[in-house]
Amino acid sequence: MNIVFTFRPPRDIQADIQRKFPEESFSFYKNIEEADDVLQDAEILVTFGSDLTEDIIGKCSSLKWIMAASAGIEEMPLSAIEERDIFVTNARGIHKIPMAEFTLGFMLNHVKRFPELHVLEKAEIWNKQLPLQELAGKEAVILGTGAIGQEIARLCKAFRMKTTGVNRSGCSVDEFDQIFQMNDLAEAVREADFVVAVLPSTPDTAGALQPEHFEAMKPTAAFINIGRGDLVSEQVLLSAINDEEIAHAYLDVFTVEPLPEGHPFWRHENITVTPHISSITKAYVPRAMEIFEHNLRCFKEGGDYQNLIDIKKGY
Amino acid sequence: MNIVFTFRPPRDIQADIQRKFPEESFSFYKNIEEADDVLQDAEILVTFGSDLTEDIIGKCSSLKWIMAASAGIEEMPLSAIEERDIFVTNARGIHKIPMAEFTLGFMLNHVKRFPELHVLEKAEIWNKQLPLQELAGKEAVILGTGAIGQEIARLCKAFRMKTTGVNRSGCSVDEFDQIFQMNDLAEAVREADFVVAVLPSTPDTAGALQPEHFEAMKPTAAFINIGRGDLVSEQVLLSAINDEEIAHAYLDVFTVEPLPEGHPFWRHENITVTPHISSITKAYVPRAMEIFEHNLRCFKEGGDYQNLIDIKKGY
Repeated sequence: MNIVFTFRPPRDIQADIQRKFPEESFSFYKNIEEADDVLQDAEILVTFGSDLTEDIIGKCSSLKWIMAASAGIEEMPLSAIEERDIFVTNARGIHKIPMAEFTLGFMLNHVKRFPELHVLEKAEIWNKQLPLQELAGKEAVILGTGAIGQEIARLCKAFRMKTTGVNRSGCSVDEFDQIFQMNDLAEAVREADFVVAVLPSTPDTAGALQPEHFEAMKPTAAFINIGRGDLVSEQVLLSAINDEEIAHAYLDVFTVEPLPEGHPFWRHENITVTPHISSITKAYVPRAMEIFEHNLRCFKEGGDYQNLIDIKKGY
Repeated sequence: MNIVFTFRPPRDIQADIQRKFPEESFSFYKNIEEADDVLQDAEILVTFGSDLTEDIIGKCSSLKWIMAASAGIEEMPLSAIEERDIFVTNARGIHKIPMAEFTLGFMLNHVKRFPELHVLEKAEIWNKQLPLQELAGKEAVILGTGAIGQEIARLCKAFRMKTTGVNRSGCSVDEFDQIFQMNDLAEAVREADFVVAVLPSTPDTAGALQPEHFEAMKPTAAFINIGRGDLVSEQVLLSAINDEEIAHAYLDVFTVEPLPEGHPFWRHENITVTPHISSITKAYVPRAMEIFEHNLRCFKEGGDYQNLIDIKKGY
């Protein structure tokens, strides 16, 4: 079987997968351009997902399966893929640990005021008067109750916080004290100390966070977005911050990435910008490869695929 | 009964305690100097603990009980107190939540490199290449397995970390995967990613962390001290950092506090300084008052005191 990677995992990982599947032919390319010559024979494509176009899919005449070593598949030409009956799996779930840790890092930086303590340190100022807060007793409202949202909620519970989830169905989910339906978002966020968004980009979620939702939040609330930038328009978010409807926004994702130089978010004192990095750690590729290996066994021998995408739903 | 406070809790807290014990006489002073005239009649003294001297104890001829609204009692004239058969209680335990949160904040800042992300942000640089790490799978070695150490270990377990405790007895304690005796400290810290000290200051702990212990640590280890500064001499710590025996020190406590201006710790890039602030939050005084109320009931009606100090042991 011809298996083409459009990224190069570390050499030991390449050797490991080849050793585990000696009868398969693996080839590893730096990017999809370099793989151009072999695309027509590729039966399986392993990609980070943003390098696929309708054209590319057209070239891949033998393609049966796309493994996206990422979670978001919104940049894929989904209708072209569907027409060709190619199936897609992704790396959903491997992000939950690093993203949940990153989220708690934002929360602790917020209540413990580490950035301000750092400024005082650089000025050699000993100031015990900075009023710190605790996570204990605070409420986190988490938009998205899948693997990542649940892992964040689990950690919030460990910190003695109240956890509220928001999802489409309103059905209860482990680790959440209560669940609201997405339709009741304004009601859900009313008592939030943190509003955390971990939603994928779908037609339903794009622009789902509206001015009325920020108006409903407490002026002391912090908004954390580690999902997708298009959940809220930049202008809506900027107005909410400038009008002091919320206290701070911690943003790892943006409508346009990289966030352009000179963008007002960069230097806004009540906005913290990180470069879409919450899920990226040294453990990333090894974990994605575990899912790929499992699914490759299913492809060869049968069994239940992990993270099979419903292309119509987009997740 | 004459109950004298040498600090002023917020007015609502003053009113609350008076309302709960209407038959007692409470007086609240800004500091012990202002309380000078009433000390001889004080039967109960409520203090942060560092304002007591042998002289003051001499003046307090009616004193039966000192409630320290703090955890450390090393600045108290303990032998003078013991001679007079005055008993001491403290606020041990109320620190565990804020101090454990603060410790996890240090840990997350370390693995997620938030201070460096902040520098990149200020320069408007989008850099996804900064290699972040995870707490999951890392080992925390915690010196001190009392209430605070246990709360830190509990949170570390929630973050999927391995927890090792170090105490005098070597006896097992909840939330710790393994326990070492203080005598085996060099062995205990060998695999640590974080060495966290939450020890009080006692004759046994002063200077207990020696060069050999830092030599035993991994060069990637981070040392966190939120206990007492005299656990390790500043010179030993500075050498360990400068010789790259460990990667970073997060220090909230120091031999001399406030840390003097110009001290080499302030601007060392591998040392983070915070102003003995890990336990201080808005919840502090209300929680200390809960313990005081419980003990005041015991004082009047009998029952088991909370946090009764063994003056000979010093904790």
